[in-house]
Amino acid sequence: MLKVEHIGIAVKSLSASIPLFERLLNTPCYKTELVEGEQVDTAFFKQGETKIELLEDKAPGGEGVIGKYLQKRGEGVHHIAFAVADLKAEMQRLAEQGFTLLNEQPKLGADNKWVCFLHPRDTQGLLVELCMERAEP
Amino acid sequence: MLKVEHIGIAVKSLSASIPLFERLLNTPCYKTELVEGEQVDTAFFKQGETKIELLEDKAPGGEGVIGKYLQKRGEGVHHIAFAVADLKAEMQRLAEQGFTLLNEQPKLGADNKWVCFLHPRDTQGLLVELCMERAEP
Repeated sequence: MLKVEHIGIAVKSLSASIPLFERLLNTPCYKTELVEGEQVDTAFFKQGETKIELLEDKAPGGEGVIGKYLQKRGEGVHHIAFAVADLKAEMQRLAEQGFTLLNEQPKLGADNKWVCFLHPRDTQGLLVELCMERAEP
Repeated sequence: MLKVEHIGIAVKSLSASIPLFERLLNTPCYKTELVEGEQVDTAFFKQGETKIELLEDKAPGGEGVIGKYLQKRGEGVHHIAFAVADLKAEMQRLAEQGFTLLNEQPKLGADNKWVCFLHPRDTQGLLVELCMERAEP
């Protein structure tokens, strides 16, 4: 793994959290992106080589993955994403090490990335995302 | 703020978690450090310019800050630490922005750092640490 690509933080409302994190981090939100497949709206901030990604549920009735997380845990860190040089090779290495992949194949995530998540039962409850920049435009 | 200096993760046992994170991150734990003032034992891993810091409670009866966190929330991300160039200036900026400082003055933390924590009530439950390399040897 190359670096912490981003830290995903579940929030109730981007409209409340974006100005809060702008004041906290002293840097503007440089992008928002609706990830339709996941039914989440996202907002990004730069901190060195790492991004802070705020996540708001957009599923009906708040029953999406972020909505369920908020019901169970409240606002806070939802996942940590690590950049990898070769996603398929890293998925294979981790499977061989006994980690459970939540995606059999890389899937398209936010921010033009190929991603794969690991099952948190193998990582002490921590949701880990692997991600790799998508080569195609 | 300059970068995500480290991500602090509360764990029940370093002896169980160090080999797990070595397999996960594919990098060795390069340092352990007992922080006597906080009654926590720590273990560090490098990921690009960011560290992963595992935290185990060492207070009697598991009643230290990490032990209480584990009782309430279980294992997981305990805090996010941002490196700053000028800790006192950043503390003043954040106080002026309405954030509550948990330390009136910088205090010595792990890894040879001056640190200050922000009250999570102002940051949607997220525990934020500011840190700056200690100049003296």
